[in-house]
Amino acid sequence: MATLVMQLLGCDVAALNTVHFSNHTGYRQFKGTRATAEQITEIYEGLCQSHLTDFDVMLSGYAPSAAAVEAVGAIGMDLQRKAEKNPGSFFWVLDPVMGDQGRLYVSNDVVPAYKRIIHHADLILPNQFEAETLSGLKITSLSTLAEAITAIHATYNVPHIIITSVDLSKFTQSSSPQTTPPDSLTVIGSTTRSDGSPRLFRVDVPALDCYFSGTGDMFAALIVARLREAVFAADPQLRTTKSWVSPDDVEATDLPLARATVQVLASMHSVLEKTMEARDAELRVADTRGDELLSEEERLKREHLRKSKAAEVRLVRNVQYLREPTMVFQAQEWRKEDLPAGSQ
Amino acid sequence: MATLVMQLLGCDVAALNTVHFSNHTGYRQFKGTRATAEQITEIYEGLCQSHLTDFDVMLSGYAPSAAAVEAVGAIGMDLQRKAEKNPGSFFWVLDPVMGDQGRLYVSNDVVPAYKRIIHHADLILPNQFEAETLSGLKITSLSTLAEAITAIHATYNVPHIIITSVDLSKFTQSSSPQTTPPDSLTVIGSTTRSDGSPRLFRVDVPALDCYFSGTGDMFAALIVARLREAVFAADPQLRTTKSWVSPDDVEATDLPLARATVQVLASMHSVLEKTMEARDAELRVADTRGDELLSEEERLKREHLRKSKAAEVRLVRNVQYLREPTMVFQAQEWRKEDLPAGSQ
Repeated sequence: MATLVMQLLGCDVAALNTVHFSNHTGYRQFKGTRATAEQITEIYEGLCQSHLTDFDVMLSGYAPSAAAVEAVGAIGMDLQRKAEKNPGSFFWVLDPVMGDQGRLYVSNDVVPAYKRIIHHADLILPNQFEAETLSGLKITSLSTLAEAITAIHATYNVPHIIITSVDLSKFTQSSSPQTTPPDSLTVIGSTTRSDGSPRLFRVDVPALDCYFSGTGDMFAALIVARLREAVFAADPQLRTTKSWVSPDDVEATDLPLARATVQVLASMHSVLEKTMEARDAELRVADTRGDELLSEEERLKREHLRKSKAAEVRLVRNVQYLREPTMVFQAQEWRKEDLPAGSQ
Repeated sequence: MATLVMQLLGCDVAALNTVHFSNHTGYRQFKGTRATAEQITEIYEGLCQSHLTDFDVMLSGYAPSAAAVEAVGAIGMDLQRKAEKNPGSFFWVLDPVMGDQGRLYVSNDVVPAYKRIIHHADLILPNQFEAETLSGLKITSLSTLAEAITAIHATYNVPHIIITSVDLSKFTQSSSPQTTPPDSLTVIGSTTRSDGSPRLFRVDVPALDCYFSGTGDMFAALIVARLREAVFAADPQLRTTKSWVSPDDVEATDLPLARATVQVLASMHSVLEKTMEARDAELRVADTRGDELLSEEERLKREHLRKSKAAEVRLVRNVQYLREPTMVFQAQEWRKEDLPAGSQ
């Protein structure tokens, strides 16, 4: 998913696969192999020996063990070291894949491994659960969400954060302002100011009633391409500024991170809408003959597999929405003082 | 290369990687791992158990051992068996990657492994050396080339063959007809008639003075997409005919295989021309500081690495030439009686 999306947006990608599975894990069964830390490191050594490490951006995602996270971290740090004479020439986007919906899906020792490497990243993309894990704060309201982002900026010294998919409807009534449309997902982002304080923006997008696998990778890949574009469209000084941190006088909604986020979400919404249409059409004509011969357990499993396949993101036929998004979403600035009294 | 090219042409691809290398082998050094036959089989079992094997086309390429070739062959045969009630619903394109320029670059036991599976394939894509290896005939003239194709059709019962890149200029003078432009490469294809005889066509394209790695995979991936399109643009009966073999009254140049080949070569020529321009521009500004401190051997190695990187095929920025080729090449029918007397 991530490799193809970046390629479709014009990036030349060197993909270092950390797993080789038959299918995504949303099917609840798969076969294949995981790369060891040594294998990850070896591939990178191969790139180094042939002088193939002149990357502009690194996107790191799921790694199958703590040692693999450390191996990926070592690669990011080495690329940073090689680029340190040219600030802004290398940017590391780190998706700290650890779990979702209140549940870790990696082994426990992966958490401290991420905590050790995150302060080297330029942008991290935790979901709500991962932001809780990194900040140590339970996010139950807009104000605890703001606190978690502030804490992550401060603890890990990471300049850019986007918390992908926050479900505000699950927050307590008093903390959910009436400006939140129903059935919407909220994405919250922030770029630090020079004093370390967050510069928060939010984007609300309509939620789609379907579970898609790989949307985290899709978001990450799109943000890689769109953030770099937005930085290159901004003041020329920005692209040679360490970690592409905008000057303090740039408003939250004018941040390249905010401009990139609205574009990314517009692309994703259209592609996922098309996927949902195709899924529904596929399920309407699905061949369920023989299902009645199965046990209830087997029938439910068969149905889950069928639904998972039908919901595979339709990427290759919807490239135009990636390249030229047609939806228009807005970033809103989000100040502490805008929070409703009950959430403070 | 193959995965991305098929995706760019609108195919949903399930890629089963048979090697995981840091870079292509044209650099003359690389690190990484090869998939074992067991790992290849395991991934396929993963697809089977989740009902993810409804493929229209399978493209098989390089496999790193005889056992891996057999594992890939077993997958092709199983997919064929699953589709046998619906002729034409599954098509296997097999690139018998064994060597080039008179030299095997796989171990000796890979050759008999390919010889055992090729008679299950629908289309094979040998280069000149591989066609010699499969036919047991040395190709030194147009007539021996025709004999080799006839022998491959007959021996392996394979309905479609394309011999990618034949260098006619190396043939003996008398056998090279004056219709061959200088500095050109020739691609020869054939679809059998019902009596097993070849239906030969040729396409001459201008040769580019540069070695590009991955062009074999690029050709294979493009032909997968374009052949299926051409079959679906032909008489509706063809797509439900086993192996998409056109009726005997279809002329060689009207074969879907010939129509697909000219489109594929047009796309490739433009992309490689753009790559050569980009390569030249990159080499002009290459940073060679420090080269003078190297030993002669080290300097040559450094130069080879630099040239290899500069010649990486520029795919992601030249997608339009893949999707809508602008060049126009022609397929010519090629009958035995057209061969010059000296070559008979």
